[in-house]
Amino acid sequence: MSTKTENQALEALFEPKSIAIVGASEDASRMGGGLIMRFLDLHEFSGTVYPVNPKYESVNGLTCFPSLADIPDSVDLAVLSVPAKIVRQTVEALEPGHVKCFLIITSGFGELGEEGKRLERELMDLIRSKGGRAVGPNSVGSINLWNGAVPSITQLLDRKDVEPGNVALASQSGAVGAAILTEAERQGIGTGHFVSSGNEADLEFSDYARYLVDDGQVGIIGGYVESIRKGEGFIDVSRAALEAGKPLIVLKVGKSDAGAIAAQSHTGALVGSDAVAQAVFDSSGVLRAADGDQFIDFMKVFNKTPASHGKRIALVSHSGGAGVLAADAATEAGLNVAALPEELRAKVAEILPDYAGFNNPLDATGPMVFRPDILAECLRIFLTSDHYDAAVLSVKLIWRNGLELIEELTKLHADVDKPFAVSWVAPHENAMEAIRKAPFPVFSDPARAARNIAARLLYDDRLRVLLADPRPSRDVEPGVAGEAPLGNVENQKAVLEAYGVRLPREMVAATIDEAEEFRAALDSAVAVKIASPDIAHRTEIGGVVTDVRGEDELAVACDTVNNNARRHHPDARIEGVLVQEMVNGGLEVLIGVKRDPVFGPMIVFGPGGTLVELIGDVNMLPCPVSEAVAYRLLDGSVLGPLFKGFRGSGPLDLKALASTIARVSWLAADRPEIAELDLNPVAVLGDGDGCVAVDYKFTVGD
Amino acid sequence: MSTKTENQALEALFEPKSIAIVGASEDASRMGGGLIMRFLDLHEFSGTVYPVNPKYESVNGLTCFPSLADIPDSVDLAVLSVPAKIVRQTVEALEPGHVKCFLIITSGFGELGEEGKRLERELMDLIRSKGGRAVGPNSVGSINLWNGAVPSITQLLDRKDVEPGNVALASQSGAVGAAILTEAERQGIGTGHFVSSGNEADLEFSDYARYLVDDGQVGIIGGYVESIRKGEGFIDVSRAALEAGKPLIVLKVGKSDAGAIAAQSHTGALVGSDAVAQAVFDSSGVLRAADGDQFIDFMKVFNKTPASHGKRIALVSHSGGAGVLAADAATEAGLNVAALPEELRAKVAEILPDYAGFNNPLDATGPMVFRPDILAECLRIFLTSDHYDAAVLSVKLIWRNGLELIEELTKLHADVDKPFAVSWVAPHENAMEAIRKAPFPVFSDPARAARNIAARLLYDDRLRVLLADPRPSRDVEPGVAGEAPLGNVENQKAVLEAYGVRLPREMVAATIDEAEEFRAALDSAVAVKIASPDIAHRTEIGGVVTDVRGEDELAVACDTVNNNARRHHPDARIEGVLVQEMVNGGLEVLIGVKRDPVFGPMIVFGPGGTLVELIGDVNMLPCPVSEAVAYRLLDGSVLGPLFKGFRGSGPLDLKALASTIARVSWLAADRPEIAELDLNPVAVLGDGDGCVAVDYKFTVGD
Repeated sequence: MSTKTENQALEALFEPKSIAIVGASEDASRMGGGLIMRFLDLHEFSGTVYPVNPKYESVNGLTCFPSLADIPDSVDLAVLSVPAKIVRQTVEALEPGHVKCFLIITSGFGELGEEGKRLERELMDLIRSKGGRAVGPNSVGSINLWNGAVPSITQLLDRKDVEPGNVALASQSGAVGAAILTEAERQGIGTGHFVSSGNEADLEFSDYARYLVDDGQVGIIGGYVESIRKGEGFIDVSRAALEAGKPLIVLKVGKSDAGAIAAQSHTGALVGSDAVAQAVFDSSGVLRAADGDQFIDFMKVFNKTPASHGKRIALVSHSGGAGVLAADAATEAGLNVAALPEELRAKVAEILPDYAGFNNPLDATGPMVFRPDILAECLRIFLTSDHYDAAVLSVKLIWRNGLELIEELTKLHADVDKPFAVSWVAPHENAMEAIRKAPFPVFSDPARAARNIAARLLYDDRLRVLLADPRPSRDVEPGVAGEAPLGNVENQKAVLEAYGVRLPREMVAATIDEAEEFRAALDSAVAVKIASPDIAHRTEIGGVVTDVRGEDELAVACDTVNNNARRHHPDARIEGVLVQEMVNGGLEVLIGVKRDPVFGPMIVFGPGGTLVELIGDVNMLPCPVSEAVAYRLLDGSVLGPLFKGFRGSGPLDLKALASTIARVSWLAADRPEIAELDLNPVAVLGDGDGCVAVDYKFTVGD
Repeated sequence: MSTKTENQALEALFEPKSIAIVGASEDASRMGGGLIMRFLDLHEFSGTVYPVNPKYESVNGLTCFPSLADIPDSVDLAVLSVPAKIVRQTVEALEPGHVKCFLIITSGFGELGEEGKRLERELMDLIRSKGGRAVGPNSVGSINLWNGAVPSITQLLDRKDVEPGNVALASQSGAVGAAILTEAERQGIGTGHFVSSGNEADLEFSDYARYLVDDGQVGIIGGYVESIRKGEGFIDVSRAALEAGKPLIVLKVGKSDAGAIAAQSHTGALVGSDAVAQAVFDSSGVLRAADGDQFIDFMKVFNKTPASHGKRIALVSHSGGAGVLAADAATEAGLNVAALPEELRAKVAEILPDYAGFNNPLDATGPMVFRPDILAECLRIFLTSDHYDAAVLSVKLIWRNGLELIEELTKLHADVDKPFAVSWVAPHENAMEAIRKAPFPVFSDPARAARNIAARLLYDDRLRVLLADPRPSRDVEPGVAGEAPLGNVENQKAVLEAYGVRLPREMVAATIDEAEEFRAALDSAVAVKIASPDIAHRTEIGGVVTDVRGEDELAVACDTVNNNARRHHPDARIEGVLVQEMVNGGLEVLIGVKRDPVFGPMIVFGPGGTLVELIGDVNMLPCPVSEAVAYRLLDGSVLGPLFKGFRGSGPLDLKALASTIARVSWLAADRPEIAELDLNPVAVLGDGDGCVAVDYKFTVGD
């Protein structure tokens, strides 16, 4: 949750009444205060600007103050673009409360190693002691194009005619952020807000995203992310974005080892496990782009299409080949390239040549490049019907009628509240600017257009699913038994059972008669293990016999483990033998807990037992999860095909499995000292027979 | 293999001494003969042009002939852009040998359905009877920019200044091909040859590719492919391209069902299984692009980089973020982002700021955007060392020094014989044309640049591996026994054994004593099955008992199957019982054969037994394969982790497995009547113990 100073600081950053520029000058040729002064002027910032520089009396006609502390009024935002040493002096001289937010352009702090990190921490402490909050250091600034508050050194601002839009961008790399911003603008995507979060010594990605979710001018939030610092904050803001219907699109880097090393040296941050981050994105409805191109594509498709309500896509082209490309990509992405109903076939047949390909994809035929009106009309017929939820039109070249096509489609876009995209390979120069400004998205390739429309449709679908999720409710009441310390096996067992995890039935028998009585009642094969507080590794000394059946075998097994125990540990206290139900049959799965340094405990599900060596695929969710959500782990599992029946068995007890997953996730959430927990194998039995954790292992941390 | 008329026709197509334009006119405003006349003139075709049109005496100052047959000399290439009916009349009137090649622009044949296909076949028969060969119908023409032979209706030709290069493009869709050609040209990729193969009623993709492989002006062959007609021809031409060191890059569509349906209705061709096509591509070194963008990217990177000799990549940027993006993508693609050696670190440290990130990726720091010479020098230091095989430079924006950067890198490109690519996000307008013309490839995103350099490096690596493959040599001498008809089980067994496939040992025993003697000698559990020519489904009637151990169990089993047989089939002839060795242990795999309608028999390898339901992943190769190549199926298998040891066993007998695969592949190649063959499970035993086909099933076709 955001605090009061955070909110004040973020409002001061994006909606400042006054901005002080420390390091102001009239020289806009270098990346510093002079350039920022110029940009504020060019973009007509209407608040108060205070130049600060001891060298000048005035800058651009404004009174220049020798120091930040000399400004008589309180300042919303102070931009610092001066050497690191002067940054410190400047803040030291301030009265508490004088400045709400510090935007630190200056570099040479945490990114330089340990000494820099120490200086950075000290500066942050100082800023907090003055009642302020900080952006950066090592930021290239922030931008709000709606009000001209653009304290940034980003060259894009050198033009006056940059149009704002509903996209906001937060970037942990200033250079990447500025480049994406520029390229997005070039592609006609309206970006209203931008912030370069720099080293994130104070405010960090989740804080900016949180503010932007609440900003009415923002509809889409893009993030270039090298490392997530506050996992909980990120999950919270993802949920808030979801509830606000504002797509959160991230370009998260640092997947590979080589990438991770570079990220460390770049921002001094520890990069968490990428698989965990991916699981969090998936479960929070965060859309992840694979690279910069896709990041911009995603911003474009969300910026230029309305929300959708289904996954049936219509594909139109004037050449069969383009339709096939689009159909392949749409199908692979998970859309339904639904067959063309007779009713619509008849409608398009009225306007198309007889030899057109009347399918979905619709091949309108080559001559239709000269009839943009007909191409648009086909799209209109499909989109105004109940049979399709979205469409892609694929065209190529169109030397003469490009502008007419854009005009027709612009009308269609205004009339129809469903997403459509255009693939336009090699358009003529004369149409380029109109394509850029088009209110609908245009891509350079049919497959790319289809994939991006798919991103929109699947996001909207996912949003509906995730919003329907109940907030995780506690599915288990472990009581006092669940609070036992986890130091020994007895307690571990008690805790698991308190959380409703079914373990194999077992007893410690003092005599062979007791053991036999228990075995006979079980009516199953048993394992016999020596029971002694002094013997840690039973298997190694022959203290375990498995698959014991019948009275005679039991007697032999009891003798064996007793004899072996006495031979190897003559002084050990022997309490008797542990007789344990052996669970036979069932599908072996793994239920695990892994505590991630950023995102906290994750509940893990995948193939168990001997399958682990063959199939490493697991699915994860942040803990805790409710039973309803636990089913999602099962839906996504490679084991899916076996759930309905396995080696001749009937359907498996998925309810018991989902319920166990949910209860283990609460255990992980309740007990932070659990670093890892493996329940493996868990035998999932037939429907109604439950599931049994045959073996388990706790790794307990601090 | 190509025939003599094929070669003549293709030479007539791309290197014609004379071109007749049937349907010539002076009207270049419509897509027809007039436009082709204009393009031939504009691109200075130096051969003879014969306009043909009964309406005119002359066209553009050239004598116009009333009919093709009226041209006194023989004609290399006749271009037909007249209604379908006139096409036929035109060809009918010819003397045999008058025209070598017919380029049929006219549409309205096979793509219109059964009646169109019939007309198309008749036309082809007619053309063959006149000693000619045909391109199309439904082609948009062909282009050879090197000699101005450009009989095409592609609008790109409307400009005189289109530069040829070493890329050749063959496309089954005229519209897609023309669009790709145009976009490639826009991106500065030199394309010298183009052909739109249309309906491929006669000459088809493999024929064009074969010719282009042999053409000295061609270095890279791109193909837009909706369906491959001659599998063997395609495999041959892939191998020829490999041996010539000319990358064959395909954009193959029709992956999805929706796509396949569209392809059918578009070209009337049956789309083969995509997985088979992919396996053929993989085994033939064919590079497959995922979409049109990637297709063009691949052409660019091969057009603008030299061949490589390793997989170690150096990454340079002026911002850490871009380096991370490139490193992630390079690692994911399979390159080695090798650590920066001290020796090179020292060299770049001499020219970079102290606070640069001295790793790989190298972060040269933001101010280096003003020093393109230093960025290029870093690249030069890496590429002239023995430590790196290739490099990617990632830059952004560069408002002032863009042209200088291109100049420096152009020098580097001339000096260094290793591939490098540039990622340039949002370049300034002033650098756009120079970027297009640059002799090295420039992409819009660091990940994209890294992925494309990876495509180059991995292709070169793959080429070395595949060229080292021996041509498949016969690993087995089945003799006469291998030729037995496959109608009954005994013969099937004999054939498998003739091909060296080990089956479980077994015998038909007439008495219990005989059965027991065989069992005792085997020293393994056995299965007992009733042996009768009249009982087809033994399991259903209780005619099979498995896992029989010891003398007593055998006696019971023999009684059981005999009794059940008599009860259910009182009149059946009973020959005794089949006693069969049961193979226990070992890894269960599947070795299969599947005959593809296009590519012929494929040998298939994957998980077997009960794993099939869990892991459907299989690998395939076209038959036959040698043992050496069969190992490649094992290398690529999901089962790989189990080969070194499985459930406590030692390493498995991979030699026996590879050898069995190779021998089965020869069986498939030798016996075309095998439509499918499943050896499943094949138990792969420990090293030296071989592998046993526990069960098998033939599907015999015509």
